[in-house]
Amino acid sequence: MEKTELRLCMIGFGNAAVAFCQLLLKKLPDIEENYGLKILLTGIAGRSKGSLLNSQGIDLGTLLKAVAATGKLSQKCEELLDCSTEKLIDQCDADVLLELSSLSIMDGQPAISYIEKALAKGLHVITANKGPIAWDFDRLSKLAESHSRIFLFETTVMDGTPIFNLVRETLPGCKVLSFKGILNSTTNFILEEMEHGNSYESAVKEAQRRGFAEADPSLDVDGWDAAAKTAAIANVLLKAGLRPTDVDRTGIAGISSEDIKAAQKNQQKIKLLCEGYIENNQAVGSVRPVLLDRNDLFSNIDATSSILTITTDLMGELSIIEKDPEIQQTAYGIYSDLLKLMQLLHPGRHNGCTS
Amino acid sequence: MEKTELRLCMIGFGNAAVAFCQLLLKKLPDIEENYGLKILLTGIAGRSKGSLLNSQGIDLGTLLKAVAATGKLSQKCEELLDCSTEKLIDQCDADVLLELSSLSIMDGQPAISYIEKALAKGLHVITANKGPIAWDFDRLSKLAESHSRIFLFETTVMDGTPIFNLVRETLPGCKVLSFKGILNSTTNFILEEMEHGNSYESAVKEAQRRGFAEADPSLDVDGWDAAAKTAAIANVLLKAGLRPTDVDRTGIAGISSEDIKAAQKNQQKIKLLCEGYIENNQAVGSVRPVLLDRNDLFSNIDATSSILTITTDLMGELSIIEKDPEIQQTAYGIYSDLLKLMQLLHPGRHNGCTS
Repeated sequence: MEKTELRLCMIGFGNAAVAFCQLLLKKLPDIEENYGLKILLTGIAGRSKGSLLNSQGIDLGTLLKAVAATGKLSQKCEELLDCSTEKLIDQCDADVLLELSSLSIMDGQPAISYIEKALAKGLHVITANKGPIAWDFDRLSKLAESHSRIFLFETTVMDGTPIFNLVRETLPGCKVLSFKGILNSTTNFILEEMEHGNSYESAVKEAQRRGFAEADPSLDVDGWDAAAKTAAIANVLLKAGLRPTDVDRTGIAGISSEDIKAAQKNQQKIKLLCEGYIENNQAVGSVRPVLLDRNDLFSNIDATSSILTITTDLMGELSIIEKDPEIQQTAYGIYSDLLKLMQLLHPGRHNGCTS
Repeated sequence: MEKTELRLCMIGFGNAAVAFCQLLLKKLPDIEENYGLKILLTGIAGRSKGSLLNSQGIDLGTLLKAVAATGKLSQKCEELLDCSTEKLIDQCDADVLLELSSLSIMDGQPAISYIEKALAKGLHVITANKGPIAWDFDRLSKLAESHSRIFLFETTVMDGTPIFNLVRETLPGCKVLSFKGILNSTTNFILEEMEHGNSYESAVKEAQRRGFAEADPSLDVDGWDAAAKTAAIANVLLKAGLRPTDVDRTGIAGISSEDIKAAQKNQQKIKLLCEGYIENNQAVGSVRPVLLDRNDLFSNIDATSSILTITTDLMGELSIIEKDPEIQQTAYGIYSDLLKLMQLLHPGRHNGCTS
């Protein structure tokens, strides 16, 4: 019998997960119409909001109202679960794991172990967490293949902007030779604030005030976030097998107001550039501040926007730019992976065209 | 029995077709390995080079050598055909029409009628000619559907840069609300030359000398090429049903050196902007020179590079940029459509991943 349900289990219930649930709630009728599938969210493992398990499907509208009102997952008439995430993956009887837990940039855990567990249990996996892709992409994608499961991760770099799908779906037969990008919005914002005459310290504070930078900004300003993204892209597009710690990394903490002024005098800007390429049959990743001419394309990537440029064997040089993303773009990324998954599982049901 | 051959018929044998044949010749072993298909080119209708028909498949290596040496298609041991293109489509016993004929910007003909004929005869169609998409996309795509044939056209705007596939394949469930772009390289080059102090007349001559502009440059400088591209994008991405003549069109012939200098004084540039959007439930297309701040992304699209920015309902604003394309990028576009066609015809044979 043809399947008519798709059951989801969600790990992590932060801003992106909430925005995804809001989008999903709106799109449930479209999905049922276009793919003939009813989506059921059967389990959620939040970090601070508690966990929830309901084999009949959690009512999304009720869930979102409860979380907005109380900050917690608890819902009347549903089974509240107080157990480990592993136990939830075991018990939620789902088809798909949505791995949306917080990034642990220094090892990709525990997200990697959640993905392993889900694949072994026969779940397809969608992750928005760059940790697993930056640390362990090759092994996880082979594991997915060995279990004949689908493993999707478009949201891990540049939110829902298609960078991995751009290459996989729209550049068939084309090989990526190298890439460069501006991929960390916090440092890009700080450098721009400094161009406006603010000191490094006050620029960091402004980024914190606006919610771009964490209380401890070191993961951004020391280039760790950019290095994780560089490793993730290199692993997928260059089959590099890099880890974030393999990326040659210089942050922006050493950039002074004088450096910025000197650059401006020369009609230049300082940007934190991520690069990946192959040298002597070896993948190389690097993150470092560079001086760019003011009329260089990369000089005009503002504040929280991002750019990725790929150089290919057959299609020359292509760039894709995401402008001023909000949390909705992250939610869309997860949603687009979910639609892609449904297309792959049921290729006959929908032609993949936009509607 | 599973098909093991894919037979192509090619209309037009200009630079792009030659570059495509060169690429195809190199890739024949890959295609056979990855898709289990032997590609046979069974017919070519050139405009000035003659026509060729060979139901056993034209030898690509011999063909390319003959054309390089003589400028003609004639090959020993193969049937030289002196007949109309229509007759060739009838007789070539092909599975796929590659419609690569010259653009007729004022009506899209005779390309449209070749496509109609091929679809009616049961051929799939790949075109690199923007005329049919700019003039008659809606009808032709419905015609293809009614014959259960595949109709692909990625190369018609921005060469092989995926713009139509970007939306169709990588932004599922996402609706394009509007777009803007710099899409005509000749005018972009002329405006840049004028920024360097050259007069309009000498910039046009330089564009002609380098082969960007035709002897009669009016199709470019009067905005007709840009209007055709605007209509094509609007028809596919906005379902607009526009024709090039419906696009509100102002070219660059009225731009003087004084205009350029005044813009430079204000830290601005003049660019020929293409736009498409919906207003009062009606699709609108426009092409016109605009003043842009020097640090606007669009100001830094150089010479022969192109940019397309789309605004979407779920994924905000995305831009894709093609840098300094050569004829190889056009060839790749046709090749990528051919691979896409094979994936659609034989979905089990290849996963669409790059190799």
